[in-house]
This record gives sequence, structure tokens and C-alpha cells, in this order.
Amino acid sequence: MTDDCLFCKIAKGEIPSKKVYEDERVFAFEDINPQAPVHIIIIPKRHIGGLNSLSEGDEAVLGYIQAAAAKIASQFQELKNGYRLVNNCGADAGQTVFHIHYHLLGGRTFGWPPG
Amino acid sequence: MTDDCLFCKIAKGEIPSKKVYEDERVFAFEDINPQAPVHIIIIPKRHIGGLNSLSEGDEAVLGYIQAAAAKIASQFQELKNGYRLVNNCGADAGQTVFHIHYHLLGGRTFGWPPG
Repeated sequence: MTDDCLFCKIAKGEIPSKKVYEDERVFAFEDINPQAPVHIIIIPKRHIGGLNSLSEGDEAVLGYIQAAAAKIASQFQELKNGYRLVNNCGADAGQTVFHIHYHLLGGRTFGWPPG
Repeated sequence: MTDDCLFCKIAKGEIPSKKVYEDERVFAFEDINPQAPVHIIIIPKRHIGGLNSLSEGDEAVLGYIQAAAAKIASQFQELKNGYRLVNNCGADAGQTVFHIHYHLLGGRTFGWPPG
């Protein structure tokens, strides 16, 4: 946990969110500015700034998040025909919160390019 | 390896590609229809159909791919201000090759929503 991190605070329940899923390692909640009928943010509870600041051992929880995304997706009927999982790293990609997070989006078809 | 899988064949060099990175577990190559100045497809060498068909042990290689994406990105000056990493799962998301793959895109700014 870093004291000023929005997503650390959400994961700890210090800032309210619409929780979708939680386990020992991962927390998932509804995006407050949804871009699809289902738009969930999945984060590791442990603070990781982003893909460009990984430390030893972070890889495992990022793999765990991929599997968690599939598990969460399976709970939504709207996602039975597919979903998109997106990580933004850095300013060019639009990363605004520097606690690594994956966007799980679905319930509609998606265009290409992805933004 | 599945006999008819395009990406298994690319990973084995049976179908040519513009290789960007390779190690024991991962293969990365340029997308033939790039959507950004840098557009790389990162795959596990071992066949995994997609996020919805993970087996025991697949999680680890998916975590490894996240770290590989960062490693590959660090090799491109164009990606120093960021990049987007995208997984499409299923028809709604536009998945066309059913060997799991992550799109690493960068070298421009990206809009939101991501497709």
C-alpha cells in the first residue's frame, strides 16, 4: 500500500466502490466511467505501479489476474460472446492511476483498432 | 502444438513472421495489419486457446507474457511514453486466431474507449 494511491484505498475499502470480486490477491470493481455495458477494473491488492515498474514476484499476480478476469467474465451472461482485457501503461496509453489495473470490457462488440 | 493453429506454426517458424522477440516460453512478432507505429503480437509457445480455456499452469505463462511485454516495450524508443496491451477473448472482442495472444501497441496516443 502506498498512502496516496487511489486504488490501494479502494482495495482496502477506504474509498467506496462497486465491488464485483475479491480474493486474497485481487480486487475488482465497476469502472465509474464505463465504456461498455460491463466495464470492470481488476487490480492486485499489492501496489504495483504499472507494467514498467515490475519487481521480482509481480509476474505471478499478473498471471493470476488474467485467470481472475476469465473467472469474473464467466459470471456475466453479457460476456458469454467475448470480452476485451486492456492494460494501459504510461501517458500515451492513457494510464491515469499508477496502480496497475486491467480493464475488462464486454457486452457489446468492439472495434479495431483498440483506441 | 495443434496441427492447424496459425500461431503455433509461426512460433515454430513453419510460417514466416517478422520476429521481435523469442525465448523458451514466448514468441513475439509484428502484426501484419498494424494499428499503431509499433504493433506486436505476443504469444505463448505452448498452445492455449484463449482466456476462456485456461488449464492448470497456464496462469504462470500469462504472467510471464505481461513481463515480456514490458521487456519488449523497453526495446522500442517509440514506446517510452507508454503502450497499450490488449487481449481479445471471443467473437465480440474480435478474436480471430484461437491461440491466446496479447497485442502490444504503441508509438502514438490512444483513445478511450479501447475499440
